Amino acid sequence: MNYKLVINILGKTLFICGLLLCIPFGISFIYNEQHLWQSFVYPIAGLFAIGLVMLLIRPEDKTILAKEGIIIVALTWVILSLVGAIPFVISGAIPSYIDAVFETVSGLTTTGASIITDVEALPKCMLFWRSFTHFIGGMGVLVFVLAILPKSSGSMHIYRAESPGPTSSKLVSKMSYTARILYTIYVVITLIQVVFYLCGGMPLFDSVLIAFSVAGTGGFAITNNGLAAYGTYSQVVASVFMFLFSLNFNLYYMILIGNVKKALKSEEFIAFAFIIFASIAVIAIDLLVSCKQFYTNFGTALKDAAFHVTSISSTTGISNNVNTDAWPTLAKSILLFLTICGAMAGSTGGGIKIARLVILFKAGISDVKKMVRPRTVTTVKFEGEVLSPETIHNTHSFLTLWFALVIMSIFILSFDKYDLFSNITATFACIGNVGPGFGEVGALKNYAGFSGISKGFLSLLMLAGRLELFPIFIMFQPTTWSKS
Amino acid sequence: MNYKLVINILGKTLFICGLLLCIPFGISFIYNEQHLWQSFVYPIAGLFAIGLVMLLIRPEDKTILAKEGIIIVALTWVILSLVGAIPFVISGAIPSYIDAVFETVSGLTTTGASIITDVEALPKCMLFWRSFTHFIGGMGVLVFVLAILPKSSGSMHIYRAESPGPTSSKLVSKMSYTARILYTIYVVITLIQVVFYLCGGMPLFDSVLIAFSVAGTGGFAITNNGLAAYGTYSQVVASVFMFLFSLNFNLYYMILIGNVKKALKSEEFIAFAFIIFASIAVIAIDLLVSCKQFYTNFGTALKDAAFHVTSISSTTGISNNVNTDAWPTLAKSILLFLTICGAMAGSTGGGIKIARLVILFKAGISDVKKMVRPRTVTTVKFEGEVLSPETIHNTHSFLTLWFALVIMSIFILSFDKYDLFSNITATFACIGNVGPGFGEVGALKNYAGFSGISKGFLSLLMLAGRLELFPIFIMFQPTTWSKS
Repeated sequence: MNYKLVINILGKTLFICGLLLCIPFGISFIYNEQHLWQSFVYPIAGLFAIGLVMLLIRPEDKTILAKEGIIIVALTWVILSLVGAIPFVISGAIPSYIDAVFETVSGLTTTGASIITDVEALPKCMLFWRSFTHFIGGMGVLVFVLAILPKSSGSMHIYRAESPGPTSSKLVSKMSYTARILYTIYVVITLIQVVFYLCGGMPLFDSVLIAFSVAGTGGFAITNNGLAAYGTYSQVVASVFMFLFSLNFNLYYMILIGNVKKALKSEEFIAFAFIIFASIAVIAIDLLVSCKQFYTNFGTALKDAAFHVTSISSTTGISNNVNTDAWPTLAKSILLFLTICGAMAGSTGGGIKIARLVILFKAGISDVKKMVRPRTVTTVKFEGEVLSPETIHNTHSFLTLWFALVIMSIFILSFDKYDLFSNITATFACIGNVGPGFGEVGALKNYAGFSGISKGFLSLLMLAGRLELFPIFIMFQPTTWSKS
Repeated sequence: MNYKLVINILGKTLFICGLLLCIPFGISFIYNEQHLWQSFVYPIAGLFAIGLVMLLIRPEDKTILAKEGIIIVALTWVILSLVGAIPFVISGAIPSYIDAVFETVSGLTTTGASIITDVEALPKCMLFWRSFTHFIGGMGVLVFVLAILPKSSGSMHIYRAESPGPTSSKLVSKMSYTARILYTIYVVITLIQVVFYLCGGMPLFDSVLIAFSVAGTGGFAITNNGLAAYGTYSQVVASVFMFLFSLNFNLYYMILIGNVKKALKSEEFIAFAFIIFASIAVIAIDLLVSCKQFYTNFGTALKDAAFHVTSISSTTGISNNVNTDAWPTLAKSILLFLTICGAMAGSTGGGIKIARLVILFKAGISDVKKMVRPRTVTTVKFEGEVLSPETIHNTHSFLTLWFALVIMSIFILSFDKYDLFSNITATFACIGNVGPGFGEVGALKNYAGFSGISKGFLSLLMLAGRLELFPIFIMFQPTTWSKS
């Protein structure tokens, strides 16, 4: 491990984290919440001071290898979570530090699982910081760092570790340009979203915060009844944007450079679109048939089906005050399936990712065929290219680690007070960065009732989900930390 | 596909199935149930007639290739399930054919999930046939065929497709000797078990049937309150034998040839023993702490913990009239975990198998290490031997197919009337050949309430679990059936 290099880059990252915290600090002045200044000034001062000291350590070798890239990403997320929780504690918004860490991790990883029962009681600047963590975490803090810092060799390793999907490809040859293009698309679509909310009569503050929540596919609401506070128009707009942010950003880039055909031919896109629209149709019909007391017309059923399918499949998990926990079994099964699947690779969403599922599906068929004809040479193609055995192996390996973490989580949560089913859905909702599950962690409930140990483990699980498992395992692997 | 060869071997198998059905037919005379003669004579006559016709078709090429081996195994199990159900229908014991097929598949695959609410109302010969299917399915009907028929080249492919585990090794170089050794061990331990039950005062008929149920790790009870009818001694004996039958039979062979040390050093055995004893200890303590109203002394808690841990981990799932569905969450989580894991490879138990989990675990660690040091050459060892990339790939592939089937099952069951949690545990209990799950398919309930479609799919799932997934997928793969 090139410790000096890691420390140096982490120093830069801390500096930028300090700058990011200045934004809610500024917001506190707009809303006359200056009395909360300590909540931000202390962590900002700390980040700048420690960041500066770390920047003084200069590495001899500036090349970032795979190991360093992964560790930089893992540590950045851990540090940002631990520091980002401080304003909540100092301000008294979330008195318990472990609760604050849970909320911050949930924000940064764009999970949106909350331990706050009355969000409307929070100061505006705290609400802003809470939702802003979604926006930071959505595209990734290190992608942001890569976008604004001068290029360094091997930065691809950082990008690969932070951006989701079984394969990461740069849009353009230069890493920093790729990062800038991604962030530009991200910011522009978010701004368009804000305009749409404003047109519907939503206040500016609310529009921006909901836009953060949707853009990062996070799901934190800023009212106690979620998007139900703003009526049908806003919910429909949110549904559309949740879908847009669950798409692979490469598609937008392809469309921008005029390659619309290629974008629409993406296998992952076709699979994802099929899953989404089939799920909406089946759930809408199921609601009409099995929930006659609540759903009397097709319009309402379709609206709620579309809202929750896009919400869960994009791994946003935002609430519109509809209790999906009371939905019929078929609808709930589909939502659980979408929770596990997640969004497209290269989106701001979480989950296993559709790309991986397509690869697993094709590899499975190929394996069955191979058993029938052992001597034929089989290749698995994805998006028009033959997949290397290594990519297939890594996808399989991802599923194995995912499975191991799920089992571990169900076991650890079972020491807590909730029932097995709630624990199972809490696990899927956290590792998939979705937020709400069923039962005790259903759409109208929250994670406040879990013990500190459970909250701590679920925080780790959310981080593991956001960074796609490997970085967290690598962090706990002793040989990672050896000098050589 | 060498159709002539497949038909010829299936003919032999049908003939043997007819012979097997003669045993309950004989039993019907002992218990003065001659009036049920049609129940057995019709299917026996049918099997002999069709079997004879099929034997007349003689293949030019007698070499069994992988594809033929797999298809022979898959078709044998499907045919035996469809024919084995007939006695239940003709006798009126189970009037509905789909219910009878479910019960027979559940018996043959040693799942032990039942749709019968009052088993004590069944005629003795039907009870015998029901439990005898466990004994046939436990070691495998084709392993039996291999044991008694003259050797044919490529019979290894049949053995490999039917016997459970990520790798199948012959005990001795000749396939038919291996099969005979396995069946001898199987029968001898079963007989010892019968003696133990007799010593405890259990009637001979009951002893034999419970011994079949335990030996095959099936779990059909012959009284409405399961083993609770016979008291503590029988339950303890059953616990011990459930454990013994969940061990890899290779271990017994090693011990027989004097290689006790090697047997005890088996990685899979150590992992399995650790899981079992840790689970018993944790559940016993959990019962004492969280179920004070039912468990006042350590002895009872330990007995029930040991009974249900061995019952679930061996994938027997037999009842002792204790409602594990009312157990605390920790205990239930462990039982669910054991349901998924299953028994050792090469045992009569089901599930993913401990050998696969050990391989997945080691491959996972190796992958994480490889990410840290991409240039090091890593190998994964299991039971002292380096695993081929192919074995690791197949184990990964198994997990993928397992995962796909689980998702598919939860979706199909959700059209039925039960809740999501019950459907999830029913899926695990059926694909793992365990039997009882939680909720509506809990230890004191049964599968009678599912619709015909659900029962049909769960039957397929049980077959898939017993034959370790691939044969069932291959059966539905069109290229399998091409002439070439």
